[in-house]
Amino acid sequence: MLSTMQDVPLTVTRILQHGMTIHGKSTITTWTGDPEPQRRTFAEAGARAVQLANALRDELGVRDGDRVATLMWNNAEHVEAYFAIPSMGAVLHTLNLRLPVEQLVWIVNHAADRVVLVNGSLLPLLAPLLPHLPTVEHVVVSGPGDRSVLDGAAARVHDYEELIAGRPTTYDWPELDERSAAAMCYTSGTTGDPKGVVYSHRSIYLHSMQVNMTESMGLTDRDTTLVVVPQFHVNAWGLPHATFMTGINMLMPDRFLQPAPLAEMIEREKPCHAAAVPTIWQGLLAEVTAHPRDLSSMKQVTIGGAACPPALMEAYDKLGVRLCHAWGMTETSPLGTMSHPPAGLTEEQEWPYRITQGRFPAGVEGRLIGPGGDVLPWDGVSAGELEVRGNWIAGAYYGGSDGEPLRPEDKFSPDGWLRTGDVGVISPDGYLTLTDRAKDVIKSGGEWISSVELENALMAHPEVAEAAVVAVPDDKWGERPLATVVLKDGATADYETLRAFLGESIAKWQLPERWALVPAVPKTSVGKFDKKVIRKQYAEGELEVTTL
Amino acid sequence: MLSTMQDVPLTVTRILQHGMTIHGKSTITTWTGDPEPQRRTFAEAGARAVQLANALRDELGVRDGDRVATLMWNNAEHVEAYFAIPSMGAVLHTLNLRLPVEQLVWIVNHAADRVVLVNGSLLPLLAPLLPHLPTVEHVVVSGPGDRSVLDGAAARVHDYEELIAGRPTTYDWPELDERSAAAMCYTSGTTGDPKGVVYSHRSIYLHSMQVNMTESMGLTDRDTTLVVVPQFHVNAWGLPHATFMTGINMLMPDRFLQPAPLAEMIEREKPCHAAAVPTIWQGLLAEVTAHPRDLSSMKQVTIGGAACPPALMEAYDKLGVRLCHAWGMTETSPLGTMSHPPAGLTEEQEWPYRITQGRFPAGVEGRLIGPGGDVLPWDGVSAGELEVRGNWIAGAYYGGSDGEPLRPEDKFSPDGWLRTGDVGVISPDGYLTLTDRAKDVIKSGGEWISSVELENALMAHPEVAEAAVVAVPDDKWGERPLATVVLKDGATADYETLRAFLGESIAKWQLPERWALVPAVPKTSVGKFDKKVIRKQYAEGELEVTTL
Repeated sequence: MLSTMQDVPLTVTRILQHGMTIHGKSTITTWTGDPEPQRRTFAEAGARAVQLANALRDELGVRDGDRVATLMWNNAEHVEAYFAIPSMGAVLHTLNLRLPVEQLVWIVNHAADRVVLVNGSLLPLLAPLLPHLPTVEHVVVSGPGDRSVLDGAAARVHDYEELIAGRPTTYDWPELDERSAAAMCYTSGTTGDPKGVVYSHRSIYLHSMQVNMTESMGLTDRDTTLVVVPQFHVNAWGLPHATFMTGINMLMPDRFLQPAPLAEMIEREKPCHAAAVPTIWQGLLAEVTAHPRDLSSMKQVTIGGAACPPALMEAYDKLGVRLCHAWGMTETSPLGTMSHPPAGLTEEQEWPYRITQGRFPAGVEGRLIGPGGDVLPWDGVSAGELEVRGNWIAGAYYGGSDGEPLRPEDKFSPDGWLRTGDVGVISPDGYLTLTDRAKDVIKSGGEWISSVELENALMAHPEVAEAAVVAVPDDKWGERPLATVVLKDGATADYETLRAFLGESIAKWQLPERWALVPAVPKTSVGKFDKKVIRKQYAEGELEVTTL
Repeated sequence: MLSTMQDVPLTVTRILQHGMTIHGKSTITTWTGDPEPQRRTFAEAGARAVQLANALRDELGVRDGDRVATLMWNNAEHVEAYFAIPSMGAVLHTLNLRLPVEQLVWIVNHAADRVVLVNGSLLPLLAPLLPHLPTVEHVVVSGPGDRSVLDGAAARVHDYEELIAGRPTTYDWPELDERSAAAMCYTSGTTGDPKGVVYSHRSIYLHSMQVNMTESMGLTDRDTTLVVVPQFHVNAWGLPHATFMTGINMLMPDRFLQPAPLAEMIEREKPCHAAAVPTIWQGLLAEVTAHPRDLSSMKQVTIGGAACPPALMEAYDKLGVRLCHAWGMTETSPLGTMSHPPAGLTEEQEWPYRITQGRFPAGVEGRLIGPGGDVLPWDGVSAGELEVRGNWIAGAYYGGSDGEPLRPEDKFSPDGWLRTGDVGVISPDGYLTLTDRAKDVIKSGGEWISSVELENALMAHPEVAEAAVVAVPDDKWGERPLATVVLKDGATADYETLRAFLGESIAKWQLPERWALVPAVPKTSVGKFDKKVIRKQYAEGELEVTTL
């Protein structure tokens, strides 16, 4: 039986129209390095977004489905691009300016971007790449920066302000299919080529609603959010869309992401909400410890991208700032879970919930798949790989402009769920705790052992400086853990002592038999343990292994 | 260009699954008249909903698209029906127990309900109707009440608890189209036959998300909501669905809707949120004035269904209870607007915003259509009929089991927007103020005059007891206002005095020329001014009219 309700597509266009009218007085404040920041209302930014859409169509010839890239910081112009490009039916492609240049080149070519909007301050990054980007016909430069580095470029160069000046502030927006592409973002691709996630209007719209629900970030037009998480990565966690939906004011740091200017903008502008990865909050904490600033306006801070060290949460608690864990990835838009504790608990009782990754919202289903491929119970003990399903979860990767979408088996289950590559447990009341990456977990006799758990337990020993645990082949169990340990100077602990120490907190069957002392744990370029290298060292007999 | 995101239908089933797992510990507390209320967790109610679905399919033969009616108060069993029926692919049809019985009979026959779930306390209402309900094959009775009144009924009679007892607590839910029918509700139909609105899974899901957004009701699992607004009318404003989405606890009054038990349940259970029409809050205010109770837990009360008298808001402000205006109708699911004032205002500055109907959320577009059919500006002055568009707004009425949907011209614009029949203005910052019903507005020379505004201004005169203003035909202007006035005992004001008094607040061109003193204003059965009768009295020369 059919309903009698209207059917209106869920589009970014609608979010733009809503924000620039109902919330027209809300503001985007962008840090500029000048004594006064740039301030622009949603009405003004919305009108400029409309002008940009007109310019892209009429002057640059952008058409339905064309990819328009941005290489920009968090600022009002980037917000304008966020709305103009999808609303006109084109696809916003945000470029991660932290990627190695060869990956950037690969990505732009794979997406076949026709236009790049770039901040002047990022021209030194873009200019040398341009000769390798044959699809890019236009470069649009916004903000201060030496344009002369583009002299001789094959692409036409435009100034953002000159390009939009005098254009109409109305646009006959196309009626878009809510399932059509609105934006895209590539994963960084530590192994293999980067993979493109193409967000739909529907996925962005529903994700925005979720971000604004009280159980997630709970934003209202009475507040200000400090958007540290970059717009060039996973849509700045959906905040630009969410803000236009409910009118919360945006505070944008542009390129001023160092602890000192961040502390200054918080003290001056008093955001009640902020979103960023743990390293940002680590740096800010060191800054305000050295040079005290009042951060207490920030009643809720969303922290994600990596697990937040509990000590960091505690330190911010003392400053009157509450860090709230969220988990997500490029493929999940990114809101996968958030860790608001259940009601009615004391602070002490809340703590174990706060350090989990949190609960799934209604729009995200989660399940744990065990070593044997079975769906595991939510018992807080059974560890499996997390798979997720929902409208803002990727079901494939972009296959290029004339390729089929890619659905690699290690990334998507046969019934379409995303394999997150994260291993963890879920409590009976639905709180997710991630313990490891699937590729690092030790698959021992049909059970999984978390390498991270063993490492953390080992590193709690007073004589251990660092410890990395990897899976190594074992005839009887399939895999068993190998513990590689860096002792502190002058330490005397032997393997039996360390194993006994581990046994105090870890089940006996999980304890490593194989041990090796190493001078240092090999690390990746971003400082993470490089377990590939350790496994290779073991396989090639380069480690001096003792078996207990 | 297609996105690479998953596509998961937005269904009531998903809300059920989410609520009974992630929010399994949240509770539904139902008032019973016993010393202790009935308490049931979402996990328990969810499991019982699954059992009900099994029973409806296996025992009663309910199939896809079948209509299953409820004639029930707000209670846990009604919540179970809310989830069981749509999740299995059938259609929940809530019957408004306040309707005249002949309308109830018409509605059940029009919907061709196969099953009626009924509270035992409502059997005296249902039993005499049953012989006139030939499509009803099964009656399922829940809760206390004399079953013997059903003796001899043609329909099979079941006890709710016996029916679900021992049934499986799992169900292989069908994969539903999100646009398929989930629930239906008929408008009361003061003119013509009642009209059925058929909500879809999509409309209910999106409406639930909106209810939970901070800018709307902002519910979380740390709170409790007192759901006074009946489940038999417009899905209890979407609260049962919204609660299962975010886990806010439900407090259900069942049949105990009188001021004294409401006051008791608020003081005992301390809900932080509540939703009801103004008359409920009027009654409660009188009750706590006579017998003081602590209502201050209610930080936010959503009030709708009729405009809230400002004096009522002020009285509750003094009790520490904030009433927040919302506007909607059966055709709008119902959330159309809510009146949270903008940020940064003093209490005094907030006041003019609080008495408006409020702002549209992103999911609802509004426009005002003027007397000439043109779209009016949002200038706070131009008055027009409100039309709305969105996914939880009706685009037609149910045409019966073998009829096409009905799209009467006076209810739906040619481009599909709902004509609300409400006339008002919208401020530049998007706040809607409704001033009149379209059928009561005076269309004078291409401009509209609000009858309600003239009435309110007249009734502010110290010698006026009541005043009703209606449109009467006028050769020159098309229509002009006729003022009918009831003077207080001993009052001496003449028409010139009253007209001069009106002129202090009303534009000169809007002032009535025609005046009549009447002993009383004719009223409808629910106490509203019956303007049809006044217009008829005028047309038939029954009023003694003076023209100034």
